[in-house]
Amino acid sequence: MQTKEVLLLLTDRWADWEAAYAIAGINSVPQYTVKTIAVTHEPKVSIGGLRTEIDYTIERYHNFENLEMLILPGGFAWQEDRHDEIANFIRKAQEFHVPVAAICGATIFLGKHGFLDEIKHTGDELELFQKERGYSGENCYVSAQIVVDNGIITANETAAIDFAHTIFGLLKIDTNEEIDAWRDHFKYGMVQ
Amino acid sequence: MQTKEVLLLLTDRWADWEAAYAIAGINSVPQYTVKTIAVTHEPKVSIGGLRTEIDYTIERYHNFENLEMLILPGGFAWQEDRHDEIANFIRKAQEFHVPVAAICGATIFLGKHGFLDEIKHTGDELELFQKERGYSGENCYVSAQIVVDNGIITANETAAIDFAHTIFGLLKIDTNEEIDAWRDHFKYGMVQ
Repeated sequence: MQTKEVLLLLTDRWADWEAAYAIAGINSVPQYTVKTIAVTHEPKVSIGGLRTEIDYTIERYHNFENLEMLILPGGFAWQEDRHDEIANFIRKAQEFHVPVAAICGATIFLGKHGFLDEIKHTGDELELFQKERGYSGENCYVSAQIVVDNGIITANETAAIDFAHTIFGLLKIDTNEEIDAWRDHFKYGMVQ
Repeated sequence: MQTKEVLLLLTDRWADWEAAYAIAGINSVPQYTVKTIAVTHEPKVSIGGLRTEIDYTIERYHNFENLEMLILPGGFAWQEDRHDEIANFIRKAQEFHVPVAAICGATIFLGKHGFLDEIKHTGDELELFQKERGYSGENCYVSAQIVVDNGIITANETAAIDFAHTIFGLLKIDTNEEIDAWRDHFKYGMVQ
């Protein structure tokens, strides 16, 4: 049996921590393999300085039938450009009903391209939240830790564990009880 | 002014999330640059499937005068081998008073080589902790979230944020207030 693919879409200065828990969990179960994809084949350097190699370019990727999820970590590149070719790639993935999981900077990008228009808990609530907290929310489009709607998972930069937890549930990498126990273990630590 | 280096020592199937916050924070301030180092030059694949390129091999690294910290993320390779050449490299770094920060699997390795012999809060407490919680502690040598002693920082697998917080303080990447605010933001999330 061919394992199903989960793609991690990398851009320049991608945020090391945001999808880290998610991909480690997914790539540890036999039914999925995590692969990296980007606009170009050059290694993409993380905010932390890791030069990470790219498995596929979006132009040459056609294996949507075997694709189970597309994960977009945040990073400093998302706000510097419209990244139209990535938006087109996501539209293509959505035609195959592939869920898209985006965190932090990547949610800004999704918002800019209209992918989040039907999602609640963004507009007014975000503004109110920012006003109340004096928080600029510079890189994030969503105020909630996690929003799941319309085949799209969005999360803010502080929600790496909840982001993984939601993804694990959607991909059914384990029973719900085990997935919840995983979240609690990592969220609250070994020593409470 | 030459920036000071912080080395991330990678092994096969290194744990994506464990040093992620730490390296992203360190590499974002002008006084430090994060570089990867390993026994061999081949890219090292993370648990999450990221093929990450290696800047230096330990055999050829001699720039200890300019080295500010050595970070060892956990991973599945630590328990498969003694990794004597890495232990020798750490001893050399310690001669230059370079602090070593290890998390999860890497703490097992440090323990095996006697680096943690003078550190408290490990032996009996760990056993008691494991008994009480029924937790196997499979990959971790330390029961506390963070122990700092004798130029060595150790942390368990669930303590990625506290690990980064402790490292940021030691490297003084910002004021203590800002570093504490960073930890609280990431630990408790934007929406509480």
